[in-house]
Amino acid sequence: MPERNVVIIGGGLVGSLTACYFAKRGWQVDLYEKRPGKQFCLPTWLSIRSINLAISERGFSALRRLDPTLEKRVKALVIPMHGRMIHSLDGTQTSQAYDVFGKAINSVGRSTLIRVLLDEASQYKNVRMHFNHEFQQADFDAGRADSDLIVGADGAYSRVRQRLMAKVMLNYSQTYIEHGYCEFSMPPRNGDFAISPSHLHIWPRQSFMLIALPNQDKSFTVTLFDQLKTGQDAVEFFRANFPDALDLMGADKVASEYMVNPKGSLMYVKCTPYTYKNRAVVIGDAAHAMVPFYGQGMNCGFEDIEELDKIMLSVARDGMSDDQILRALDTYSSKRTKDASAIVDLALDNYVEMRAKVIDYAYLARKHLEGLLHRVFPKHIIPLYTMVSFTSIPYAAVIGRWQRQSLWLHRAVRTAFAAAAFAVGVASARVLGLRAPSLVEVARLFTKRS
Amino acid sequence: MPERNVVIIGGGLVGSLTACYFAKRGWQVDLYEKRPGKQFCLPTWLSIRSINLAISERGFSALRRLDPTLEKRVKALVIPMHGRMIHSLDGTQTSQAYDVFGKAINSVGRSTLIRVLLDEASQYKNVRMHFNHEFQQADFDAGRADSDLIVGADGAYSRVRQRLMAKVMLNYSQTYIEHGYCEFSMPPRNGDFAISPSHLHIWPRQSFMLIALPNQDKSFTVTLFDQLKTGQDAVEFFRANFPDALDLMGADKVASEYMVNPKGSLMYVKCTPYTYKNRAVVIGDAAHAMVPFYGQGMNCGFEDIEELDKIMLSVARDGMSDDQILRALDTYSSKRTKDASAIVDLALDNYVEMRAKVIDYAYLARKHLEGLLHRVFPKHIIPLYTMVSFTSIPYAAVIGRWQRQSLWLHRAVRTAFAAAAFAVGVASARVLGLRAPSLVEVARLFTKRS
Repeated sequence: MPERNVVIIGGGLVGSLTACYFAKRGWQVDLYEKRPGKQFCLPTWLSIRSINLAISERGFSALRRLDPTLEKRVKALVIPMHGRMIHSLDGTQTSQAYDVFGKAINSVGRSTLIRVLLDEASQYKNVRMHFNHEFQQADFDAGRADSDLIVGADGAYSRVRQRLMAKVMLNYSQTYIEHGYCEFSMPPRNGDFAISPSHLHIWPRQSFMLIALPNQDKSFTVTLFDQLKTGQDAVEFFRANFPDALDLMGADKVASEYMVNPKGSLMYVKCTPYTYKNRAVVIGDAAHAMVPFYGQGMNCGFEDIEELDKIMLSVARDGMSDDQILRALDTYSSKRTKDASAIVDLALDNYVEMRAKVIDYAYLARKHLEGLLHRVFPKHIIPLYTMVSFTSIPYAAVIGRWQRQSLWLHRAVRTAFAAAAFAVGVASARVLGLRAPSLVEVARLFTKRS
Repeated sequence: MPERNVVIIGGGLVGSLTACYFAKRGWQVDLYEKRPGKQFCLPTWLSIRSINLAISERGFSALRRLDPTLEKRVKALVIPMHGRMIHSLDGTQTSQAYDVFGKAINSVGRSTLIRVLLDEASQYKNVRMHFNHEFQQADFDAGRADSDLIVGADGAYSRVRQRLMAKVMLNYSQTYIEHGYCEFSMPPRNGDFAISPSHLHIWPRQSFMLIALPNQDKSFTVTLFDQLKTGQDAVEFFRANFPDALDLMGADKVASEYMVNPKGSLMYVKCTPYTYKNRAVVIGDAAHAMVPFYGQGMNCGFEDIEELDKIMLSVARDGMSDDQILRALDTYSSKRTKDASAIVDLALDNYVEMRAKVIDYAYLARKHLEGLLHRVFPKHIIPLYTMVSFTSIPYAAVIGRWQRQSLWLHRAVRTAFAAAAFAVGVASARVLGLRAPSLVEVARLFTKRS
């Protein structure tokens, strides 16, 4: 079996992890990245894009499969966030744990993580890195020895995907949401974190919100999600809506950062298939960009490559024929498009949860009940957030399971109400000396409500 | 006010009509078409794409607004089809009129119509045509004197739209349906049409169908819509499903045409917005490609330019400032995206209607009832097909109106049933000497069913 070569377009988080995986399986890897990346030591572009990252189980699982020590090294660099801290308008802070067993998602700097992964990739002798190289065009069918396979890990505005679109009948959609984002920073206070570092902070204001994630240097990255208007007086806006955050950040800083920092747009992408024959595949944001509200963009991208690796190994252990690659890519595409579509939808839904539902009583009551049940039946009742963030249950299966669970939960709540009503009825009847209601009568009362 | 210049990309049906409209309003027009088009006399590319065209009210309206004699000249070239002719498996033919007042849609050859329109455009001194010119790139912001405005009329795979996507936050989706198509021809028989020329012929077979539209030379263009399999024995397939068509087309011809003729795919496109500042707009298939099952693709494209012209004139009668163009394009985009989205959906739904519902009794009963009511209340009850094909009611309004109409129709049918039941009840009660049911009792019986 001849040596196989793969060209990876995009040296971001997903691209660099993909390089490691292919290298580990013995492929000759060429990684192309359009930005400069001299020596991998803090290239300037690493600070351009942010929205803090939160790495959770799916991300760790992919690192672990590649190399258990890599997972450990990354874990040493993160800040665990065990729950949400809700900031109300009067400054009250309320903690909401992510998981009844104390599991956490983990704040990590994009630049920190990407340096670790590029470093890791450079340890492989069969990885060649090419910075300052922009992907323009590719003849997917050329089949030259230096590119048996092209992997597009070139992000939401992927050019590889654009080429794919010209080659296959690609069902594709891109949708912008009406809100954009702007980043600010909250400096340390007296040498320490200004607010709890073990929480993801949220200032939910129904139609918009502010969030903050901790950084290693004890600062916070603060992000405003809203329909951003140009010329808006940011300080006035913060004073009216996030007065405690304004105090901690400083009016001057808020004003200048709102002026200087770019306003990003938020977009999600779905497409199917992900592949062209045995020649090309898109992965990560190039395949399924999502809004950042579930903290799953990178985790899903990492899981992509773990899934692809599993499928490739199940198809052929040593060396791969063209036909085996074709089968592996087909299998990958038909399974993964469904899972990615599910998390793209969940991420969109979670925006409403973060900015509004977290202060809704019915939501909190259900969350509490689900948490209790999860504690008693940890394998059978699993809250949605836990399934997404702390397990590797396929995203599409998560949605199915959650829908069934909701149905059962509603039934259980109704039964509990009926039982309570029956007990009250019997007791009142005794006290008043009347005929007690029959079980059937009470049951009828409650089944009518459905 | 300086003279305005427009660059139109795409010299197809919509592009050439657009050229006429801008020329009529005094703009300097440059029309670019990638295919050769020497002297407009039967350029070879005109025969490449077909799916026969059916022009109806919206298309005629746009021609009429430009020049009433143009409408007349086109009307002389079409073959009116007053209804569907349904071919059942045993060869029975059943005619279903399109309209109770005898209105018709009109079969016209793509090459015939495009020649008329290119000819028309060439009559304007301020139109320059550039064939063999392919659009590659454009700096929408350049604002050179030779292109105040760029109109992308370059079809479903529009490159202008691709540029637009790089400039604005474009919500975009393209979706392929599972079926493709393949064209055949049915020659004249004894010097005349082999089947009725005043019908659109359909062989509805639930999950697939064959259709035929008449041509001026007394042949028919026959199109198979199905999940086309390669290596399929077309003659066997026709013998099993369309035996009468096979007889009229000839087995040899079917076999060779299935082998030689390309198999097309079917795709629809939605996007919003259609415009970039006051600089660019997409129109026709470039903005809203649709599946061909409502025969509205071209009609909608023609209506696009009529709408744009109306809006431009309402904004400014003589000469236009940049700001006026901006306002006109914004208005056009926000209105037209909704209407186009509606007809894209209707066209998709109509595939099920054509291949399956036309032989469904409930569908036929409703159609009959709607037709009767339309005859009595021609302004108040208008069947869906009539609104789409024989009026200029905006497509989005058509859907709203049709939904309200369906609701009323259901209520009316229920009331009619209730009245009949009441009459039968009273009559039976008399005969049997029992208490007659009250109106309320009968009404209750029927309102429960909803």
